[in-house]
Amino acid sequence: MKKNIGPILGLYPTPVTVLGTETGGKVNWVTIAHVGIIGLDRIILSMNKNHASNKAIKENRTVSINLVNEEMLVETDYIGLVSGNKIDKSDVFDYYYGELKGAPLIKKSPLNMECEVVDIYETEQHESFIVKPLNTYVDESMLSDDGSIDYEKISPVLFEMPRRQYMSTGKIVGQCWSIGKGYKK
Amino acid sequence: MKKNIGPILGLYPTPVTVLGTETGGKVNWVTIAHVGIIGLDRIILSMNKNHASNKAIKENRTVSINLVNEEMLVETDYIGLVSGNKIDKSDVFDYYYGELKGAPLIKKSPLNMECEVVDIYETEQHESFIVKPLNTYVDESMLSDDGSIDYEKISPVLFEMPRRQYMSTGKIVGQCWSIGKGYKK
Repeated sequence: MKKNIGPILGLYPTPVTVLGTETGGKVNWVTIAHVGIIGLDRIILSMNKNHASNKAIKENRTVSINLVNEEMLVETDYIGLVSGNKIDKSDVFDYYYGELKGAPLIKKSPLNMECEVVDIYETEQHESFIVKPLNTYVDESMLSDDGSIDYEKISPVLFEMPRRQYMSTGKIVGQCWSIGKGYKK
Repeated sequence: MKKNIGPILGLYPTPVTVLGTETGGKVNWVTIAHVGIIGLDRIILSMNKNHASNKAIKENRTVSINLVNEEMLVETDYIGLVSGNKIDKSDVFDYYYGELKGAPLIKKSPLNMECEVVDIYETEQHESFIVKPLNTYVDESMLSDDGSIDYEKISPVLFEMPRRQYMSTGKIVGQCWSIGKGYKK
């Protein structure tokens, strides 16, 4: 039996990310899991307008997206607990730079994307930044033999809002555009 | 050591959904995993313009979003292999209706959302539908004692593009806005 629980947003789990920004020579981090994909080349990052990072993203028109593994989880949750408006979070992660200014990349993250902002979609309390990855940096040990990203190895941490929990990525359960060939009504 | 693999969209895994639509009295299904969350009440569904379902969504301004579990995976992949422009897919899933016209809900899916379209974000080859869930229907066995959705029980199937694979949702690995309190530099 199904129960109607009302207008609850039920599209979880989603990948947890730490976004890297810089303004006035100061690096900042913010934890965001309300994210998504647009088309084949854009990512949407939906951020409450009161985050300190929004100002930096608008100033530079750049941001980094860093996937989170279990080894980074305590720092990642800490980043989400304290505001960059009040506390300097720049030293929570060691970082490096790629080609873009304003987009510091987390060394211990298994996958970093340095991104350019192409648009901002505004709603009541949120700015949703629409960005394009310019370069994606992956730990070589997380690549498969053909050079593609191996998400079983990366095992990104995911988020679900209803019970406010982090979840792990599981195992491969099927090949897309393949297992459906066996369908019979 | 990290390797720069270029402008690769690396934000995976994302939840696999089957979207339900109806036009001319005919139900259709489409499999979409390029999805996301905007703010706290909107979902974005990014769809290639050549999908048959886009026309129906624009006509009714409604759509259903159905999460996928492993028991539904062969049918779900089949839906993604064949076009509703050529093949009648209406009988692949048994369905029911909530309050909205044009948004059939899949009986065997553990979680259905009936949604209203509030905006369309257009890019070169894609229409990204921005929708609000009006009602969310969940199998009672998938709710926790406090009535919230238990994603460990639902165990939604996820998708990753680089190797074109379906993945399972794993286990709870931490409490959000909590475990970070133990952070020490």
